[in-house]
Amino acid sequence: MHLTPALARLVQALGKLPGIGEKTATRLALHILNADRDYVESLAEAIWAVKAATTLCQECFGLAEGELCSICSDPQRSPEAICVVEEPADLMAVERTHDYRGQYHVLHGVLAPLDGIGPDELKIAPLLERLRRGRTKEVIIATNPTVEGEATALYLAKLIKPLGIRVSRIAHGIPMGGDVEYVDAVTLGRAIEGRREM
Amino acid sequence: MHLTPALARLVQALGKLPGIGEKTATRLALHILNADRDYVESLAEAIWAVKAATTLCQECFGLAEGELCSICSDPQRSPEAICVVEEPADLMAVERTHDYRGQYHVLHGVLAPLDGIGPDELKIAPLLERLRRGRTKEVIIATNPTVEGEATALYLAKLIKPLGIRVSRIAHGIPMGGDVEYVDAVTLGRAIEGRREM
Repeated sequence: MHLTPALARLVQALGKLPGIGEKTATRLALHILNADRDYVESLAEAIWAVKAATTLCQECFGLAEGELCSICSDPQRSPEAICVVEEPADLMAVERTHDYRGQYHVLHGVLAPLDGIGPDELKIAPLLERLRRGRTKEVIIATNPTVEGEATALYLAKLIKPLGIRVSRIAHGIPMGGDVEYVDAVTLGRAIEGRREM
Repeated sequence: MHLTPALARLVQALGKLPGIGEKTATRLALHILNADRDYVESLAEAIWAVKAATTLCQECFGLAEGELCSICSDPQRSPEAICVVEEPADLMAVERTHDYRGQYHVLHGVLAPLDGIGPDELKIAPLLERLRRGRTKEVIIATNPTVEGEATALYLAKLIKPLGIRVSRIAHGIPMGGDVEYVDAVTLGRAIEGRREM
């Protein structure tokens, strides 16, 4: 392919992003080349700045700028519930529902003994510390429905219940718009198990 | 959505790239946040540098760094043929075939009178100047098979033929791996018109 050295470097760097192959990277690079200077500078600046500006919230370990994230420093959010997620992206997904007004706690992973990830590699100790402060009435565990996510949920439940705090797990079942006929057997089994009286 | 200000700026900037919606932009931004510092700096630097480093070749108006592009300064390339394309991306597409060893000329657009784009807005005068130097034996017109691309091809052919230079148009027909049954009627018509003896 005929690319100038600067374009080739950009195509290579863009091609390392997830889901961006060489063809898409070339299209994006040519777009950037033709875009106006203000936009290109703001894009480069935003990429540069995001790592420097972003910290982990010292309370929930979600993404923040400074000590506390916008949720932990929001007095409108209820201190009585903590939703436990694996990653910051999961926190964002729950926030998008606009249904939940409590706190969060980001584990930054799941228990995976085969990969050498035990409780000490996750933000579990700070979670227990938060719970011991005594304002929390319920912990909602929203780890992914994978083997590791389930194991982590069970592990946390065993630790938290003795503190006299209610522990719940988000529901698993047929997604809205899904199809009973085509959903996989494990999900359908969970949906029947988790049925609710109407 | 719960995003820190720096992440929100990055999502917004990435979301302006073609084919990147808000969801993909968020995924890319989180990837960049977690990527190692060296990579992030090289990506920002590559974006920053591409506009500054890239020039137009003074001979063919393809992308270059400096006065001449790598094709125009390559003594191995035949000076006898010039392939005329609309945009630098088209030049790259022809180069990917590895079939063509001549020169190029990038018009930077097509004739579009309704949009106010006439011959003076395109790199047509420098093309004629190159042809008058007398080394070119054939001009291959590879504008797109659109109304404007066809009109531009006809316009160029009328200008170039009086110079005693052969003018050809790239073939249009059924793409390799395509299907006679499903190809559109215009393309099939062109394929029959352009048939070759076996």
